[in-house]
Amino acid sequence: MTQDTRHFAEELAELNQRLLVMGDLAEERLRAAMQALLERDRVMMANVVQGDEAINRLHLEIDDRCFKLLALYQPMAVDLRMIVAAVKINSDLERVGDLAVNVAEASERYVEHAPVKPLIDIPRMGSMAQRMLDEALKAFVSRDVELAQAVLTQDDVLDGLKDQIFRELLTYMLGDTGKIEPGIDLILISRHLERVGDHATNIAEDVIFIVEARDVRHHGTDRTA
Amino acid sequence: MTQDTRHFAEELAELNQRLLVMGDLAEERLRAAMQALLERDRVMMANVVQGDEAINRLHLEIDDRCFKLLALYQPMAVDLRMIVAAVKINSDLERVGDLAVNVAEASERYVEHAPVKPLIDIPRMGSMAQRMLDEALKAFVSRDVELAQAVLTQDDVLDGLKDQIFRELLTYMLGDTGKIEPGIDLILISRHLERVGDHATNIAEDVIFIVEARDVRHHGTDRTA
Repeated sequence: MTQDTRHFAEELAELNQRLLVMGDLAEERLRAAMQALLERDRVMMANVVQGDEAINRLHLEIDDRCFKLLALYQPMAVDLRMIVAAVKINSDLERVGDLAVNVAEASERYVEHAPVKPLIDIPRMGSMAQRMLDEALKAFVSRDVELAQAVLTQDDVLDGLKDQIFRELLTYMLGDTGKIEPGIDLILISRHLERVGDHATNIAEDVIFIVEARDVRHHGTDRTA
Repeated sequence: MTQDTRHFAEELAELNQRLLVMGDLAEERLRAAMQALLERDRVMMANVVQGDEAINRLHLEIDDRCFKLLALYQPMAVDLRMIVAAVKINSDLERVGDLAVNVAEASERYVEHAPVKPLIDIPRMGSMAQRMLDEALKAFVSRDVELAQAVLTQDDVLDGLKDQIFRELLTYMLGDTGKIEPGIDLILISRHLERVGDHATNIAEDVIFIVEARDVRHHGTDRTA
Protein backbone atom coordinates (compact mmCIF):
# COMPACT_ATOMS: atom_id res chain seq x y z
CA MET A 1 0.00 0.00 0.00
CA THR A 2 1.52 3.33 -1.01
CA GLN A 3 1.46 6.31 1.32
CA ASP A 4 -1.10 7.93 -0.97
CA THR A 5 -3.55 5.06 -0.84
CA ARG A 6 -3.11 4.78 2.93
CA HIS A 7 -3.90 8.47 3.30
CA PHE A 8 -6.86 8.09 1.00
CA ALA A 9 -8.26 5.12 2.95
CA GLU A 10 -7.82 7.04 6.20
CA GLU A 11 -9.54 10.11 4.85
CA LEU A 12 -12.39 8.07 3.40
CA ALA A 13 -12.91 6.41 6.80
CA GLU A 14 -12.84 9.85 8.40
CA LEU A 15 -15.44 11.08 5.88
CA ASN A 16 -17.68 8.12 6.77
CA GLN A 17 -17.27 8.89 10.43
CA ARG A 18 -18.12 12.58 9.99
CA LEU A 19 -21.24 11.69 8.00
CA LEU A 20 -22.34 9.51 10.90
CA VAL A 21 -21.83 12.37 13.35
CA MET A 22 -23.93 14.50 10.98
CA GLY A 23 -26.59 11.78 10.97
CA ASP A 24 -26.59 11.58 14.77
CA LEU A 25 -26.99 15.35 15.00
CA ALA A 26 -29.89 15.35 12.55
CA GLU A 27 -31.61 12.44 14.34
CA GLU A 28 -31.09 14.06 17.73
CA ARG A 29 -32.63 17.34 16.54
CA LEU A 30 -35.64 15.56 15.11
CA ARG A 31 -36.03 13.54 18.31
CA ALA A 32 -35.85 16.71 20.42
CA ALA A 33 -38.39 18.49 18.18
CA MET A 34 -40.87 15.61 18.58
CA GLN A 35 -40.32 15.36 22.34
CA ALA A 36 -40.82 19.13 22.68
CA LEU A 37 -44.12 18.89 20.80
CA LEU A 38 -45.40 16.02 22.95
CA GLU A 39 -44.37 17.66 26.21
CA ARG A 40 -45.40 21.14 24.99
CA ASP A 41 -41.93 22.27 26.09
CA ARG A 42 -41.28 25.75 24.68
CA VAL A 43 -37.69 25.91 25.91
CA MET A 44 -36.83 22.72 24.09
CA MET A 45 -38.59 24.02 20.94
CA ALA A 46 -36.57 27.23 21.07
CA ASN A 47 -33.38 25.18 21.46
CA VAL A 48 -34.18 23.22 18.30
CA VAL A 49 -35.05 26.40 16.37
CA GLN A 50 -31.85 28.15 17.38
CA GLY A 51 -29.46 25.23 17.54
CA ASP A 52 -28.54 24.52 13.95
CA GLU A 53 -25.02 25.97 13.95
CA ALA A 54 -23.34 22.61 14.65
CA ILE A 55 -25.11 20.81 11.83
CA ASN A 56 -24.57 23.70 9.40
CA ARG A 57 -20.87 23.80 10.24
CA LEU A 58 -20.56 20.06 9.73
CA HIS A 59 -22.48 20.30 6.44
CA LEU A 60 -19.86 22.69 5.08
CA GLU A 61 -16.99 20.64 6.52
CA ILE A 62 -18.21 17.40 4.92
CA ASP A 63 -18.78 19.04 1.54
CA ASP A 64 -15.26 20.40 1.77
CA ARG A 65 -13.85 16.97 2.62
CA CYS A 66 -15.62 15.40 -0.38
CA PHE A 67 -14.34 18.12 -2.63
CA LYS A 68 -10.75 17.71 -1.46
CA LEU A 69 -10.89 13.93 -1.76
CA LEU A 70 -12.09 14.27 -5.35
CA ALA A 71 -9.44 16.85 -6.17
CA LEU A 72 -6.46 15.21 -4.47
CA TYR A 73 -6.95 11.50 -5.06
CA GLN A 74 -9.03 11.23 -8.24
CA PRO A 75 -10.85 8.19 -6.89
CA MET A 76 -12.42 5.57 -9.13
CA ALA A 77 -15.30 3.10 -9.06
CA VAL A 78 -16.73 2.34 -5.63
CA ASP A 79 -14.67 5.09 -3.96
CA LEU A 80 -15.90 7.68 -6.43
CA ARG A 81 -19.48 6.51 -5.97
CA MET A 82 -19.04 6.71 -2.21
CA ILE A 83 -17.82 10.32 -2.35
CA VAL A 84 -20.50 11.52 -4.78
CA ALA A 85 -23.08 9.77 -2.58
CA ALA A 86 -21.57 11.46 0.48
CA VAL A 87 -22.23 14.88 -1.09
CA LYS A 88 -25.87 13.91 -1.54
CA ILE A 89 -26.32 12.24 1.85
CA ASN A 90 -24.78 15.31 3.45
CA SER A 91 -27.44 17.50 1.79
CA ASP A 92 -30.19 15.12 2.88
CA LEU A 93 -29.05 15.20 6.49
CA GLU A 94 -28.81 18.98 6.46
CA ARG A 95 -32.38 19.12 5.19
CA VAL A 96 -33.49 16.78 7.99
CA GLY A 97 -31.96 19.28 10.42
CA ASP A 98 -33.97 22.05 8.72
CA LEU A 99 -37.12 19.94 8.96
CA ALA A 100 -36.54 19.51 12.71
CA VAL A 101 -36.52 23.32 12.87
CA ASN A 102 -39.73 23.43 10.84
CA VAL A 103 -41.37 20.95 13.24
CA ALA A 104 -40.23 23.01 16.24
CA GLU A 105 -41.51 26.26 14.69
CA ALA A 106 -44.91 24.74 13.91
CA SER A 107 -44.95 23.33 17.47
CA GLU A 108 -44.29 26.79 18.91
CA ARG A 109 -47.41 28.01 17.11
CA TYR A 110 -49.34 24.86 18.04
CA VAL A 111 -48.88 25.23 21.80
CA GLU A 112 -50.33 28.73 21.70
CA HIS A 113 -53.70 26.96 21.47
CA ALA A 114 -55.37 24.23 23.49
CA PRO A 115 -54.49 20.73 22.24
CA VAL A 116 -56.60 19.65 19.27
CA LYS A 117 -56.58 16.06 20.48
CA PRO A 118 -54.25 13.60 22.22
CA LEU A 119 -51.39 13.06 19.77
CA ILE A 120 -51.03 9.45 18.75
CA ASP A 121 -50.43 9.14 15.03
CA ILE A 122 -48.09 12.13 14.76
CA PRO A 123 -45.62 10.69 17.31
CA ARG A 124 -46.00 7.37 15.49
CA MET A 125 -45.06 9.13 12.24
CA GLY A 126 -42.14 10.78 14.04
CA SER A 127 -40.85 7.44 15.36
CA MET A 128 -41.22 5.87 11.96
CA ALA A 129 -39.36 8.70 10.20
CA GLN A 130 -36.61 8.51 12.81
CA ARG A 131 -36.33 4.75 12.42
CA MET A 132 -36.13 5.07 8.63
CA LEU A 133 -33.36 7.62 8.97
CA ASP A 134 -31.54 5.49 11.51
CA GLU A 135 -31.77 2.38 9.36
CA ALA A 136 -30.68 4.27 6.24
CA LEU A 137 -27.57 5.43 8.11
CA LYS A 138 -26.92 1.93 9.47
CA ALA A 139 -27.27 0.61 5.93
CA PHE A 140 -24.77 3.24 4.82
CA VAL A 141 -22.20 2.26 7.48
CA SER A 142 -22.43 -1.44 6.83
CA ARG A 143 -23.12 -1.13 3.08
CA ASP A 144 -26.22 -3.24 3.75
CA VAL A 145 -28.37 -3.29 0.62
CA GLU A 146 -31.05 -5.42 2.26
CA LEU A 147 -31.52 -2.92 5.07
CA ALA A 148 -31.56 -0.10 2.52
CA GLN A 149 -34.32 -1.89 0.61
CA ALA A 150 -36.29 -2.24 3.86
CA VAL A 151 -36.17 1.55 4.26
CA LEU A 152 -37.67 2.03 0.80
CA THR A 153 -40.68 -0.15 1.62
CA GLN A 154 -41.53 1.87 4.75
CA ASP A 155 -42.08 5.09 2.82
CA ASP A 156 -45.55 4.07 1.65
CA VAL A 157 -46.62 3.32 5.22
CA LEU A 158 -45.45 6.78 6.27
CA ASP A 159 -47.48 8.35 3.44
CA GLY A 160 -50.53 6.35 4.50
CA LEU A 161 -50.19 7.61 8.08
CA LYS A 162 -49.95 11.18 6.78
CA ASP A 163 -53.25 10.81 4.85
CA GLN A 164 -54.95 9.26 7.87
CA ILE A 165 -53.77 12.12 10.10
CA PHE A 166 -55.10 14.65 7.60
CA ARG A 167 -58.56 13.11 7.49
CA GLU A 168 -58.79 12.84 11.27
CA LEU A 169 -57.66 16.41 11.88
CA LEU A 170 -60.07 17.71 9.27
CA THR A 171 -62.95 16.20 11.26
CA TYR A 172 -61.82 18.05 14.38
CA MET A 173 -61.41 21.31 12.46
CA LEU A 174 -64.85 21.04 10.87
CA GLY A 175 -66.41 20.49 14.29
CA ASP A 176 -64.71 23.36 16.10
CA THR A 177 -63.32 26.47 14.38
CA GLY A 178 -61.00 26.99 17.37
CA LYS A 179 -59.15 23.91 16.17
CA ILE A 180 -58.53 25.17 12.64
CA GLU A 181 -55.31 27.06 13.30
CA PRO A 182 -53.61 24.44 15.55
CA GLY A 183 -54.97 21.70 13.25
CA ILE A 184 -53.15 23.26 10.30
CA ASP A 185 -49.91 23.24 12.26
CA LEU A 186 -50.31 19.53 12.99
CA ILE A 187 -50.94 18.90 9.29
CA LEU A 188 -47.79 20.83 8.43
CA ILE A 189 -45.83 18.83 11.03
CA SER A 190 -47.03 15.58 9.43
CA ARG A 191 -45.79 16.88 6.06
CA HIS A 192 -42.39 17.71 7.54
CA LEU A 193 -42.16 14.18 8.94
CA GLU A 194 -43.13 12.77 5.57
CA ARG A 195 -40.22 14.67 4.06
CA VAL A 196 -37.84 13.23 6.64
CA GLY A 197 -38.94 9.85 5.30
CA ASP A 198 -38.21 11.06 1.76
CA HIS A 199 -34.68 12.00 2.78
CA ALA A 200 -34.17 8.63 4.47
CA THR A 201 -35.34 7.06 1.22
CA ASN A 202 -32.82 9.14 -0.75
CA ILE A 203 -30.03 7.95 1.55
CA ALA A 204 -31.13 4.32 1.20
CA GLU A 205 -31.10 4.71 -2.60
CA ASP A 206 -27.59 6.16 -2.42
CA VAL A 207 -26.44 3.15 -0.38
CA ILE A 208 -27.74 0.81 -3.06
CA PHE A 209 -25.98 2.95 -5.66
CA ILE A 210 -22.66 2.80 -3.79
CA VAL A 211 -22.77 -0.96 -3.35
CA GLU A 212 -24.32 -2.08 -6.59
CA ALA A 213 -23.53 0.79 -8.95
CA ARG A 214 -27.18 0.55 -9.84
CA ASP A 215 -29.55 3.45 -9.80
CA VAL A 216 -32.84 2.51 -8.13
CA ARG A 217 -34.45 5.93 -8.44
CA HIS A 218 -37.39 6.59 -10.70
CA HIS A 219 -38.30 2.99 -11.32
CA GLY A 220 -42.00 2.90 -10.79
CA THR A 221 -42.07 4.09 -7.18
CA ASP A 222 -43.71 7.47 -6.87
CA ARG A 223 -42.70 9.47 -3.83
CA THR A 224 -44.17 12.79 -4.89
CA ALA A 225 -47.61 12.38 -3.35
CA MET B 1 -5.23 21.44 -26.69
CA THR B 2 -4.94 17.69 -26.40
CA GLN B 3 -7.65 15.39 -27.64
CA ASP B 4 -8.51 14.61 -24.02
CA THR B 5 -9.03 18.21 -22.98
CA ARG B 6 -11.04 18.90 -26.13
CA HIS B 7 -13.31 15.96 -25.34
CA PHE B 8 -13.59 17.14 -21.76
CA ALA B 9 -14.54 20.68 -22.79
CA GLU B 10 -17.13 19.30 -25.19
CA GLU B 11 -18.64 17.03 -22.58
CA LEU B 12 -18.70 19.80 -19.99
CA ALA B 13 -20.55 22.03 -22.47
CA GLU B 14 -22.95 19.18 -23.15
CA LEU B 15 -23.51 18.72 -19.40
CA ASN B 16 -24.31 22.43 -19.10
CA GLN B 17 -26.71 22.17 -21.96
CA ARG B 18 -28.51 19.13 -20.51
CA LEU B 19 -28.87 20.87 -17.15
CA LEU B 20 -30.55 23.76 -18.97
CA VAL B 21 -32.96 21.37 -20.66
CA MET B 22 -33.68 19.92 -17.21
CA GLY B 23 -34.26 23.45 -15.91
CA ASP B 24 -36.64 24.23 -18.78
CA LEU B 25 -38.59 21.05 -18.10
CA ALA B 26 -38.88 21.85 -14.39
CA GLU B 27 -39.96 25.43 -15.11
CA GLU B 28 -42.47 24.31 -17.69
CA ARG B 29 -44.05 21.81 -15.31
CA LEU B 30 -44.35 24.40 -12.57
CA ARG B 31 -45.85 26.89 -15.03
CA ALA B 32 -48.38 24.30 -16.23
CA ALA B 33 -49.30 23.38 -12.63
CA MET B 34 -49.98 27.04 -11.79
CA GLN B 35 -51.95 27.63 -14.99
CA ALA B 36 -54.02 24.50 -14.33
CA LEU B 37 -54.84 25.76 -10.83
CA LEU B 38 -55.90 29.20 -12.08
CA GLU B 39 -58.00 27.82 -14.92
CA ARG B 40 -59.30 24.92 -12.80
CA ASP B 41 -58.22 22.69 -15.67
CA ARG B 42 -58.31 19.08 -14.48
CA VAL B 43 -56.84 17.67 -17.68
CA MET B 44 -53.80 19.90 -17.37
CA MET B 45 -53.46 18.92 -13.69
CA ALA B 46 -53.52 15.22 -14.58
CA ASN B 47 -50.89 15.85 -17.25
CA VAL B 48 -48.58 17.43 -14.69
CA VAL B 49 -49.18 14.61 -12.18
CA GLN B 50 -48.48 11.90 -14.73
CA GLY B 51 -45.85 13.59 -16.85
CA ASP B 52 -42.63 13.28 -14.88
CA GLU B 53 -40.95 10.52 -16.89
CA ALA B 54 -38.96 12.97 -19.05
CA ILE B 55 -37.54 14.85 -16.07
CA ASN B 56 -36.81 11.65 -14.16
CA ARG B 57 -34.98 10.17 -17.13
CA LEU B 58 -32.95 13.35 -17.56
CA HIS B 59 -32.18 13.37 -13.83
CA LEU B 60 -30.56 9.94 -14.12
CA GLU B 61 -28.79 10.85 -17.36
CA ILE B 62 -27.24 14.01 -15.90
CA ASP B 63 -26.08 12.22 -12.74
CA ASP B 64 -24.52 9.61 -14.96
CA ARG B 65 -22.75 12.26 -17.05
CA CYS B 66 -21.34 13.90 -13.93
CA PHE B 67 -20.16 10.58 -12.65
CA LYS B 68 -18.43 9.66 -15.91
CA LEU B 69 -16.79 13.09 -16.19
CA LEU B 70 -15.39 12.69 -12.67
CA ALA B 71 -14.19 9.15 -13.36
CA LEU B 72 -12.69 9.69 -16.82
CA TYR B 73 -11.11 13.13 -16.64
CA GLN B 74 -10.33 13.71 -12.97
CA PRO B 75 -11.12 17.40 -13.29
CA MET B 76 -9.61 20.04 -11.03
CA ALA B 77 -10.50 23.45 -9.58
CA VAL B 78 -13.34 25.26 -11.34
CA ASP B 79 -14.21 22.22 -13.50
CA LEU B 80 -14.45 19.99 -10.45
CA ARG B 81 -16.60 22.58 -8.67
CA MET B 82 -18.81 22.82 -11.73
CA ILE B 83 -19.42 19.06 -11.84
CA VAL B 84 -20.08 18.69 -8.10
CA ALA B 85 -22.45 21.66 -8.37
CA ALA B 86 -24.14 20.01 -11.36
CA VAL B 87 -24.95 16.95 -9.22
CA LYS B 88 -26.60 19.23 -6.68
CA ILE B 89 -28.40 21.45 -9.21
CA ASN B 90 -29.70 18.33 -10.90
CA SER B 91 -31.24 17.18 -7.59
CA ASP B 92 -32.74 20.62 -7.02
CA LEU B 93 -34.37 20.64 -10.44
CA GLU B 94 -35.74 17.15 -9.97
CA ARG B 95 -37.27 18.29 -6.69
CA VAL B 96 -38.85 21.28 -8.45
CA GLY B 97 -40.44 18.81 -10.85
CA ASP B 98 -41.77 16.85 -7.85
CA LEU B 99 -43.11 20.07 -6.33
CA ALA B 100 -44.98 20.81 -9.57
CA VAL B 101 -46.63 17.40 -9.12
CA ASN B 102 -47.44 18.30 -5.49
CA VAL B 103 -49.03 21.57 -6.64
CA ALA B 104 -51.08 19.74 -9.29
CA GLU B 105 -52.23 17.09 -6.78
CA ALA B 106 -53.30 19.72 -4.25
CA SER B 107 -55.04 21.56 -7.10
CA GLU B 108 -56.96 18.42 -8.03
CA ARG B 109 -58.31 18.30 -4.49
CA TYR B 110 -58.87 22.07 -4.46
CA VAL B 111 -61.16 22.15 -7.50
CA GLU B 112 -63.46 19.58 -5.92
CA HIS B 113 -64.77 22.52 -3.87
CA ALA B 114 -66.05 25.97 -4.72
CA PRO B 115 -63.24 28.54 -4.92
CA VAL B 116 -62.24 29.89 -1.50
CA LYS B 117 -61.56 33.31 -2.99
CA PRO B 118 -60.19 34.87 -6.19
CA LEU B 119 -56.55 33.79 -6.30
CA ILE B 120 -54.16 36.76 -6.34
CA ASP B 121 -51.25 36.18 -4.00
CA ILE B 122 -50.77 32.50 -4.83
CA PRO B 123 -50.23 33.20 -8.56
CA ARG B 124 -47.96 36.05 -7.47
CA MET B 125 -45.96 33.56 -5.37
CA GLY B 126 -45.91 31.18 -8.36
CA SER B 127 -44.58 33.86 -10.70
CA MET B 128 -41.97 34.88 -8.16
CA ALA B 129 -40.79 31.29 -7.60
CA GLN B 130 -40.62 30.77 -11.37
CA ARG B 131 -38.66 33.98 -11.83
CA MET B 132 -36.20 33.00 -9.09
CA LEU B 133 -35.68 29.63 -10.73
CA ASP B 134 -35.26 31.22 -14.15
CA GLU B 135 -32.75 33.77 -12.87
CA ALA B 136 -30.82 31.11 -10.95
CA LEU B 137 -30.48 29.11 -14.17
CA LYS B 138 -29.51 32.21 -16.15
CA ALA B 139 -26.91 32.97 -13.49
CA PHE B 140 -25.66 29.40 -13.87
CA VAL B 141 -25.31 29.67 -17.68
CA SER B 142 -23.53 33.00 -17.62
CA ARG B 143 -21.69 32.40 -14.32
CA ASP B 144 -23.25 35.66 -13.17
CA VAL B 145 -22.61 36.08 -9.43
CA GLU B 146 -24.53 39.34 -9.26
CA LEU B 147 -27.67 37.75 -10.67
CA ALA B 148 -27.21 34.80 -8.29
CA GLN B 149 -27.02 37.23 -5.37
CA ALA B 150 -30.25 38.86 -6.59
CA VAL B 151 -31.99 35.48 -6.37
CA LEU B 152 -30.91 35.10 -2.73
CA THR B 153 -32.49 38.42 -1.75
CA GLN B 154 -35.88 37.45 -3.22
CA ASP B 155 -36.32 34.48 -0.91
CA ASP B 156 -37.38 36.62 2.04
CA VAL B 157 -40.07 38.30 -0.07
CA LEU B 158 -41.41 34.89 -1.03
CA ASP B 159 -41.53 33.85 2.63
CA GLY B 160 -43.38 37.05 3.47
CA LEU B 161 -45.98 36.34 0.80
CA LYS B 162 -46.45 32.84 2.19
CA ASP B 163 -47.18 34.20 5.69
CA GLN B 164 -49.60 36.77 4.28
CA ILE B 165 -51.45 34.07 2.31
CA PHE B 166 -51.70 31.93 5.43
CA ARG B 167 -53.26 34.72 7.52
CA GLU B 168 -55.72 35.65 4.80
CA LEU B 169 -56.85 32.07 4.17
CA LEU B 170 -57.23 31.47 7.90
CA THR B 171 -59.77 34.32 8.02
CA TYR B 172 -61.81 32.69 5.27
CA MET B 173 -61.63 29.29 6.95
CA LEU B 174 -62.72 30.66 10.33
CA GLY B 175 -65.70 32.37 8.69
CA ASP B 176 -66.94 29.37 6.71
CA THR B 177 -66.20 25.73 7.58
CA GLY B 178 -66.85 24.80 3.93
CA LYS B 179 -63.61 26.63 3.14
CA ILE B 180 -61.44 24.67 5.56
CA GLU B 181 -60.56 21.77 3.28
CA PRO B 182 -59.85 23.78 0.11
CA GLY B 183 -58.14 26.43 2.25
CA ILE B 184 -55.68 23.83 3.54
CA ASP B 185 -54.85 22.84 -0.03
CA LEU B 186 -54.07 26.46 -0.91
CA ILE B 187 -51.84 26.70 2.16
CA LEU B 188 -50.03 23.52 1.09
CA ILE B 189 -49.63 24.95 -2.43
CA SER B 190 -48.06 28.10 -0.99
CA ARG B 191 -45.62 25.88 0.94
CA HIS B 192 -44.71 23.99 -2.23
CA LEU B 193 -44.01 27.30 -3.99
CA GLU B 194 -41.90 28.44 -1.06
CA ARG B 195 -39.82 25.30 -1.50
CA VAL B 196 -39.35 26.04 -5.21
CA GLY B 197 -37.84 29.31 -4.02
CA ASP B 198 -35.57 27.37 -1.66
CA HIS B 199 -34.32 25.23 -4.55
CA ALA B 200 -33.71 28.34 -6.69
CA THR B 201 -31.73 29.70 -3.74
CA ASN B 202 -29.69 26.49 -3.56
CA ILE B 203 -28.87 26.79 -7.27
CA ALA B 204 -27.87 30.44 -6.88
CA GLU B 205 -25.57 29.49 -4.00
CA ASP B 206 -24.00 26.78 -6.15
CA VAL B 207 -23.35 29.34 -8.92
CA ILE B 208 -21.51 31.54 -6.43
CA PHE B 209 -19.55 28.49 -5.27
CA ILE B 210 -18.56 27.56 -8.83
CA VAL B 211 -17.39 31.06 -9.71
CA GLU B 212 -15.84 32.21 -6.47
CA ALA B 213 -14.97 28.90 -4.76
CA ARG B 214 -16.66 30.46 -1.78
CA ASP B 215 -19.40 28.85 0.17
CA VAL B 216 -22.21 31.29 0.89
CA ARG B 217 -24.44 28.82 2.70
CA HIS B 218 -25.16 29.08 6.40
CA HIS B 219 -23.92 32.62 6.88
CA GLY B 220 -26.64 34.33 8.82
CA THR B 221 -29.49 33.78 6.39
CA ASP B 222 -32.12 31.44 7.73
CA ARG B 223 -34.20 29.64 5.12
CA THR B 224 -35.80 27.15 7.42
CA ALA B 225 -38.92 29.10 8.38
